[in-house]
Amino acid sequence: MSSSKNKKSALHETKSDPSLNLSQTSAERIKNLRRQSKDIKKLTEGILSGNKTDLSQAITLIESQSKRHTEDIKTIISTCLPYSNKSLRIGITGVPGVGKSTFIEQLGLLLVKKGHKVAVLAVDPSSSVTRGSILGDKTRMEKLVQHPMAYIRPTASGESLGGVARKTRESILLCEAAGYDILLIETVGVGQSETAVHSMTDFFLLLKLAGAGDELQGIKRGIIEMADAIVINKADGDNIKAAKKAKVEFNRALHMYPSKSNGWDPKVKLASALQNEGIDKVWKMLTDYFEKAKQNGYFEEKRADQNKFWLTQTIEDSLKKEFYQNEVIKSEFPEVLEKIHNQDLSPFEAAEYLLKKAKI
Amino acid sequence: MSSSKNKKSALHETKSDPSLNLSQTSAERIKNLRRQSKDIKKLTEGILSGNKTDLSQAITLIESQSKRHTEDIKTIISTCLPYSNKSLRIGITGVPGVGKSTFIEQLGLLLVKKGHKVAVLAVDPSSSVTRGSILGDKTRMEKLVQHPMAYIRPTASGESLGGVARKTRESILLCEAAGYDILLIETVGVGQSETAVHSMTDFFLLLKLAGAGDELQGIKRGIIEMADAIVINKADGDNIKAAKKAKVEFNRALHMYPSKSNGWDPKVKLASALQNEGIDKVWKMLTDYFEKAKQNGYFEEKRADQNKFWLTQTIEDSLKKEFYQNEVIKSEFPEVLEKIHNQDLSPFEAAEYLLKKAKI
Repeated sequence: MSSSKNKKSALHETKSDPSLNLSQTSAERIKNLRRQSKDIKKLTEGILSGNKTDLSQAITLIESQSKRHTEDIKTIISTCLPYSNKSLRIGITGVPGVGKSTFIEQLGLLLVKKGHKVAVLAVDPSSSVTRGSILGDKTRMEKLVQHPMAYIRPTASGESLGGVARKTRESILLCEAAGYDILLIETVGVGQSETAVHSMTDFFLLLKLAGAGDELQGIKRGIIEMADAIVINKADGDNIKAAKKAKVEFNRALHMYPSKSNGWDPKVKLASALQNEGIDKVWKMLTDYFEKAKQNGYFEEKRADQNKFWLTQTIEDSLKKEFYQNEVIKSEFPEVLEKIHNQDLSPFEAAEYLLKKAKI
Repeated sequence: MSSSKNKKSALHETKSDPSLNLSQTSAERIKNLRRQSKDIKKLTEGILSGNKTDLSQAITLIESQSKRHTEDIKTIISTCLPYSNKSLRIGITGVPGVGKSTFIEQLGLLLVKKGHKVAVLAVDPSSSVTRGSILGDKTRMEKLVQHPMAYIRPTASGESLGGVARKTRESILLCEAAGYDILLIETVGVGQSETAVHSMTDFFLLLKLAGAGDELQGIKRGIIEMADAIVINKADGDNIKAAKKAKVEFNRALHMYPSKSNGWDPKVKLASALQNEGIDKVWKMLTDYFEKAKQNGYFEEKRADQNKFWLTQTIEDSLKKEFYQNEVIKSEFPEVLEKIHNQDLSPFEAAEYLLKKAKI
């Protein structure tokens, strides 16, 4: 356990951060403790002045999971909090192979050209299977990663969704404090990460391919309902006809859902990230959305709702965790399930029984 | 508060139940207490022998919400529990005006003719607005209500969804113990009641009308996804063409969802409850489903999942309730929300703060 933790820290370690040094004497530790508050202040100032190295280092602290850094992170975040909340947060999802990284790079390049500061974060709570593909994006977005106005960062993976969600939210906050005014939050179109990303972004964009008649297959239930727009990528060459057909079908599918509470009807757009076609129209759609949502107050309302969601979600996750990790409950739970199965107990009686047990 | 409770009890009161008498002297009360355990035993025996009056009386106890009856209900339920679980539970939903009661009556009449014992329960957690329509069903199902093999009962309404769900589950259990082998659980197609009914039935049927091109409008998000079948009612006379068109559209809509885990592809059927047409085909489809689901083990699996769902749901509802009703939390919550809004606190810090507060 401890060795895997060390390994993790080592992975994220950067040479300039003394607090991450694991092989230090106690004299050094005391020296570090004194230095730390000064370093944290410097680090925070660096973030606020837009220094990418400082931003990366702070996100590394957020991801380190080490209890030693908890206070540091709190200090950084509470200092940055008043400078956050000012960007447009765009969630982008799609299954592997849909061309997410190419799309994000082209959109990012368009935006930096227009004078925006763009940060790309990748959320990947699923483990090793998909980790590769998202980490790989960073090297694949070769042009964008070199641009001074862009910042690309894959976030922590392989942990609980709640944990990853919190880290992503905190990373968003730091990026905003560092002056990034457009955030592209990427997630793979599998698992529960979409719900989390949907709950922390202002606009949720689903990337799709035109397929052979079964365009809507393979999408997790509910994702289409969450989408504010569907972009059919790779709409080029021989694919154009199929893409246009898919557009009609998606429009029909979206039409079958009741209108969203914000009055925005989800749009379907065609694009070819590879040929850099249609990206400008996607951006036009996004600016239309933001204009409307800010005008009718929905933008602010949604953010307030999201804050409340994360507040209650964190509380409720913690309450559940505490209950189910109670040793008494852990040992009684299988037996209670067995009793329900054998019709000796109703689920309601069983719940009452366990709730009483947890209090003893 | 107390007067409304009395009113409620009086509404459900039946003359033969002494424990429901509200204007009794303490001497009478003591006498009743002694008599009670004997009465409860008699009542339970009555249920198990299929006596409708006893069944009704026990369901009235379940609905009474009075703490005085908690122990009685527990006794009745634990005695009946081993005799439950043997029926087919069919959830039926649809917006008011779709012809739910006519459809249920025709289906019920078909089933009693085939030798089944049919119980109809109505779930209505929404308040007065819709209450009328469901209570009204009872008198509207004139033929079915008079049939010796049928039992019709509107359940408690106007309360919390969790409370209504528990009462309905317990009523289901008693109906099964009384020998009803097919249960039709009705709910209005609004509010959250569908999710609850979906989680306590084996098959979920959505009733719809053919409309003017917007057949899918007005349905709550997610209801189509929950449906195991859609029956387009009032497919008669001038409506037939529109109904057939709607069938095609619904089939297309259903096709756009990924397959259900049980391998059952949701079906679309046409019916005219008024003309008693198509009801037999709906029943044929239901028997097909049950045959398959029992063969591949999905039937049992789903019930086990539902039991686990109600167990954890009850536990988690209780944990949340306790937390949010804590006086300290109640007084601090608005201030914390305000601080989040003003960017003085992140939702995660705020959650930690409140969780600590609740423990003091």
